[in-house]
Amino acid sequence: MPELRHDPIQKRWVIIATERGRRPSDFVKSEPPPISGFCPFDEGNEDKTPPEVLAFRRPGTAPDTPGWDVRVVSNKFPALRIEGDLDRAADGIYDKMNGIGAHEVVIETPQHDLNLADQPVEQFTNIMLAAQMRLTDLMRDLRFRYVLIFRNHGTTAGASLAHPHTQIIATPVTPRTVSMELDSAREHYHAKERCLFCDIIRQEMKQGIRVISEVDGMISFTPFASRFPFEVFVMPIQHSHDFAELNQDGLTALSKCLKDTLLRLKLALDDPPYNFMLHTAPNTRTAARRPGHWLTLPFDYHWHFEITPRLVKVAGFEWGTGFYINPTPPEDAARYLREIVIP
Amino acid sequence: MPELRHDPIQKRWVIIATERGRRPSDFVKSEPPPISGFCPFDEGNEDKTPPEVLAFRRPGTAPDTPGWDVRVVSNKFPALRIEGDLDRAADGIYDKMNGIGAHEVVIETPQHDLNLADQPVEQFTNIMLAAQMRLTDLMRDLRFRYVLIFRNHGTTAGASLAHPHTQIIATPVTPRTVSMELDSAREHYHAKERCLFCDIIRQEMKQGIRVISEVDGMISFTPFASRFPFEVFVMPIQHSHDFAELNQDGLTALSKCLKDTLLRLKLALDDPPYNFMLHTAPNTRTAARRPGHWLTLPFDYHWHFEITPRLVKVAGFEWGTGFYINPTPPEDAARYLREIVIP
Repeated sequence: MPELRHDPIQKRWVIIATERGRRPSDFVKSEPPPISGFCPFDEGNEDKTPPEVLAFRRPGTAPDTPGWDVRVVSNKFPALRIEGDLDRAADGIYDKMNGIGAHEVVIETPQHDLNLADQPVEQFTNIMLAAQMRLTDLMRDLRFRYVLIFRNHGTTAGASLAHPHTQIIATPVTPRTVSMELDSAREHYHAKERCLFCDIIRQEMKQGIRVISEVDGMISFTPFASRFPFEVFVMPIQHSHDFAELNQDGLTALSKCLKDTLLRLKLALDDPPYNFMLHTAPNTRTAARRPGHWLTLPFDYHWHFEITPRLVKVAGFEWGTGFYINPTPPEDAARYLREIVIP
Repeated sequence: MPELRHDPIQKRWVIIATERGRRPSDFVKSEPPPISGFCPFDEGNEDKTPPEVLAFRRPGTAPDTPGWDVRVVSNKFPALRIEGDLDRAADGIYDKMNGIGAHEVVIETPQHDLNLADQPVEQFTNIMLAAQMRLTDLMRDLRFRYVLIFRNHGTTAGASLAHPHTQIIATPVTPRTVSMELDSAREHYHAKERCLFCDIIRQEMKQGIRVISEVDGMISFTPFASRFPFEVFVMPIQHSHDFAELNQDGLTALSKCLKDTLLRLKLALDDPPYNFMLHTAPNTRTAARRPGHWLTLPFDYHWHFEITPRLVKVAGFEWGTGFYINPTPPEDAARYLREIVIP
């Protein structure tokens, strides 16, 4: 069973994957994994993954057989385990709990090398819908405080399989990055009775210099304090704290805007490695059990996708300070991306 | 002039290097830089770097000529600029200031390929002394709130020049990582009237399972919630909040312990890429001007080096949550490192 451990200095949780137990020799001058012809995510290899938990399939096809457009399975090598109790415990000054959680993979297409940016909007929307359905389902489990939807594109960005896929991890604690955003948004709301993100969107739309595109009520822009070159946020212009509440029209609009952004990045930067992460409200079912904690939640959070191309190395200065050095002003990045002509 | 920008969502500062202004074509399929025979840090090339600000040299040699053991120069491509005023300003909802700071390089040896782990203790101590002297000097500048001493070893860890060197960056704000540690330590001190780090050291020494070595009052151990495989902390067993106060004997002890740790990592992991960072008290001169803020400082911080080998990729999950997945339990890492036989 993996273990969750709390760092009392940085107040951060870490997943210690005790079962993998990698030894020094596993790291020494590691070669890239051999490129075999075999891919467990290809159509026809359904028996090489854990059973599907959700699939959009052609009528009459059976689970775990060919005939699907989008397929969600549990991760074969999960970072967290679905079975068991949390078992919170102290170890002297330290805190730990069992590594309970869920780790799923959304296989975005049967086609082995179809770039997400090149997907038709309809299929892109199916992928987002599948991710949203799994998020909603995982939030029913009261052990989970947060569900992260994220994507690693390219080996530099941490992708270990080439076949296009998005990942979902449910965690038994609210991650620090999200708590920090919730705290900032709550402070802002309590001071001004306005949503911090809505205020940011209003300023971005007024100034215009960092906006990339606006599609059917969704906006993409490079954040004022971008950590990385060509970092992009995509979010709904209308206030909404919870991605799970997005309806079919909204999912289509989001998919159009996300696809537009990913395509611009692909064309401008020759298919760069990137990560994207969804930040949305934590599990309000478990939060409701801690009175007063999320009382103002519908008003003081605003879901959004963060897209971070991996173009520069993160080194000692960044790790040591939490400061970032970004060599491309976000106003320049937005202008380059706006000027891309989409064929 | 680079610009410091504040992220109102993550409450984090970012350095926007406006002058470098890297365009999309600068990132596209970037080749590693060509290995030329020329190194500006080699002895004899002193005129290829900015003038030295400190050097330990043989008697009778002139500044910026051969004859040095350790040489400190300004970074030729600094992330922050030394001249100017801070000029704090608002831009609507956002905050910014001029990118004032200092960025220096400690050239550790005239020898182009002498690994820091293989330096004699005496030379290692000279390097630490030079870094400490520069830190003390930079802290006299009241514009600087923090001085970070750090090292990137290997290209994966962000090193752009092979010649062994350590870097120093002075920043006009206290970095978020350090503030977080100060907050945790202060909370702990106010609750228990004991230093958080001293408590951690006591538990580590009692349990023993994560300790690597103990050398002349310095201890190295793998932290309980290690983010990365083979992450190591090195710190004084006796309480001390400020690295600048370490005397000559202390510098020698630190150098022995750091060298011992780096040598074990080098032997266990075949000279892995790594970063190290010093976390120490912020500039107490500027802090003193904000009454009440650091009043208990001498008691509630404890300087330490964090050494983080770069053996695994950081991907979407880590960036999205601030959570880390560590495949090597720190107890295993400590055992491997303890068992290394140093020739």
